[in-house]
Amino acid sequence: MKILVQKFGGTSVATLERMKQVRAKVQAGLDRGFKMVVVLSARAGETNRLLALAQEWSASPDLAECDSLVSTGEQASIALFSMLLNDSGIKARSMLGFQVPITTDDDFGNARIRSIDSEILLQALEQYDVLVVAGFQGCTEDKRITTLGRGGSDTSAVALAAALGSVECEIYTDVDGVYTTDPNLCSTARKMDRVAYDEMLEMASMGAKVLHIRSVEFAKKYKVPVHVRSTFTDNPGTLVTQEDSTMEAVLVSGIAYDKDQARVSLRGVPDQPGIAAAIFGPLSEQGVLVDMIVQNTAFDEPTTDMTFTVSRKELPKTLAICEEIKQKIGAKELLHDATVAKVSAIGVGMRNHSGVAARAFSALQAEGINILMIGTSEIKITILIQEKYVELAVRILHDTFGLDWDLGV
Amino acid sequence: MKILVQKFGGTSVATLERMKQVRAKVQAGLDRGFKMVVVLSARAGETNRLLALAQEWSASPDLAECDSLVSTGEQASIALFSMLLNDSGIKARSMLGFQVPITTDDDFGNARIRSIDSEILLQALEQYDVLVVAGFQGCTEDKRITTLGRGGSDTSAVALAAALGSVECEIYTDVDGVYTTDPNLCSTARKMDRVAYDEMLEMASMGAKVLHIRSVEFAKKYKVPVHVRSTFTDNPGTLVTQEDSTMEAVLVSGIAYDKDQARVSLRGVPDQPGIAAAIFGPLSEQGVLVDMIVQNTAFDEPTTDMTFTVSRKELPKTLAICEEIKQKIGAKELLHDATVAKVSAIGVGMRNHSGVAARAFSALQAEGINILMIGTSEIKITILIQEKYVELAVRILHDTFGLDWDLGV
Repeated sequence: MKILVQKFGGTSVATLERMKQVRAKVQAGLDRGFKMVVVLSARAGETNRLLALAQEWSASPDLAECDSLVSTGEQASIALFSMLLNDSGIKARSMLGFQVPITTDDDFGNARIRSIDSEILLQALEQYDVLVVAGFQGCTEDKRITTLGRGGSDTSAVALAAALGSVECEIYTDVDGVYTTDPNLCSTARKMDRVAYDEMLEMASMGAKVLHIRSVEFAKKYKVPVHVRSTFTDNPGTLVTQEDSTMEAVLVSGIAYDKDQARVSLRGVPDQPGIAAAIFGPLSEQGVLVDMIVQNTAFDEPTTDMTFTVSRKELPKTLAICEEIKQKIGAKELLHDATVAKVSAIGVGMRNHSGVAARAFSALQAEGINILMIGTSEIKITILIQEKYVELAVRILHDTFGLDWDLGV
Repeated sequence: MKILVQKFGGTSVATLERMKQVRAKVQAGLDRGFKMVVVLSARAGETNRLLALAQEWSASPDLAECDSLVSTGEQASIALFSMLLNDSGIKARSMLGFQVPITTDDDFGNARIRSIDSEILLQALEQYDVLVVAGFQGCTEDKRITTLGRGGSDTSAVALAAALGSVECEIYTDVDGVYTTDPNLCSTARKMDRVAYDEMLEMASMGAKVLHIRSVEFAKKYKVPVHVRSTFTDNPGTLVTQEDSTMEAVLVSGIAYDKDQARVSLRGVPDQPGIAAAIFGPLSEQGVLVDMIVQNTAFDEPTTDMTFTVSRKELPKTLAICEEIKQKIGAKELLHDATVAKVSAIGVGMRNHSGVAARAFSALQAEGINILMIGTSEIKITILIQEKYVELAVRILHDTFGLDWDLGV
């Protein structure tokens, strides 16, 4: 049995007209001889409507009840789409998380998939040509409904593709693929034909919103090729897949950016062992996610400066915590700046090449962009700059690493 | 463990304010030392909104998908109410049909409950003080969601009360009990303190819309006392229960009526054995529900007249079928009248008394109301009259059988 998994987001199923476009994609899969597994999100706006209802009913809604409430969004969209398919003579039925079943842990609102029973799905595919599966939801061992967190429908689709041995997982969106950078910032941004899982992971976590990061982790773990493409055209999109030698020939694959950054500095911190733990321990305990960290030590002084970034909405909380830390460890000054942003160059090719970072720095400095912080990983260089320079920096880096040329890979 | 089942309809859970009134009823149960099982309908208007959506998507929506869609209405209301209870410090959780589980047959849209597993409910009641259960829904053996048909939430509540050995099943509505007749027609209509299952069954099937008829059958079968009462007051309502000697002392307990009646006559039907089957066989095969039937035989003729009633919306279909039958059996004439209605006097007390029918007929005829058809059963007399006389007939019968007096039973 040849199985193809397709996933469609909320805007693709918002109206009857849109759902008819989705039906055409499903029909195309059937025409190619596949049994189809179609994963749908809730109709656009529905999840927010339900969350607003929960907020009206309770200042802090019970998480399990909230999941049961919110999951009705997908339940409605898969029922409606199955009706539409049956009306067209296509043998289809809907499947909810508990019916598959997609078993998750009990972290309501942000559950993780533990297992998918493919047996019932395969039996159902003997009887039906299309299974319309609710994205974003699963259920615990004791049958309580869970949701996978925002964007979780991508993860549902990839997990189903893995469980069923689907040739690939098609993720349909309102863009036609993954770009070398944001086309809104950089007119020479180019759609990539292929991108490695690791590159996609770095891009997703940096704010490239095409694919939910957990779905890429899942795809990488189970080696599921993910085809990101547009609901509104028939053009091929971008294949997210395992890296190969052609990918490594390219130094940098994409430029990502993230404006949701704030910088915090503790100045004049006594330079003692354990001081980093004294600062980042309390932050982590209170759920603040620290991103970049730099420690400057002046050789002739017994103190050091500790600088790090957090997302802007966590800045007030972070400053409150740091004020306490400052008193406790006897630091001199607490400074912050919420007008910073980060720009990253990503590419599996940079593993084998030095000098990528140097090229990036000099290109930015040549245009007068001051570099505030630097972070590097095996396949990524991240540079913190003033927010006002983001658009310029993205274009400079995109140009510097030749991303506007189609290298034919 | 003392368990009390309460059921609230769509208007009782329509808004946050209304749900707070429901919470007060639940709290009152907790204060009396009960573990509570609360059955809710969808919020008022929600089921119709979802059915309209289904109709938009498909001219004849797949029944199983329609059930999955429509069941989201109850799913939302029980999640919201559980949030509200938890906010008030009441340990509560929602339970969907498949979670209980309430197992039904696979007659989607009109499923019948086969079994309720009380084990999981009882376990959950160890942990929670209130279980908020979705009315109207169940699931098949293979975990597809079913609905029980309109008014099915009453049936859910009674079935749960039976399975859990609830002391009684409280059905909250927007009226304060069951009346001797429709108070809108008859100002002396009186709320009954008690009514027998059989009486309630006859009243429900005659259009007294307080309780869904299947829920009364269920209550009778499992001897569950059903307390019909108002969400908006603390007054006791009407207890629907097993009959006893005090009930039998009352000749007639209530007067019901039904305006949704049409009369059809086949005149000059050859009077042969099997002629009734030749007429009612095809009607039944095509799903027409025939109510009253009268056959008049003229002694001096070889033909007979066959007259029966159907609901008005089935009249066109009935006439089409009867036209064929007329040709086939060689009847002379096919007549119909859609301006008729029926009025019934109901009471377990009439089992032991003759003359009730005669009293009813003479009372109506004394006021010049022409009796078109008559039907009697052990505890009911039904009289078909012209629709325009319904209000008058109800008042006459109500008066004739002394229902405006409180007999202290």
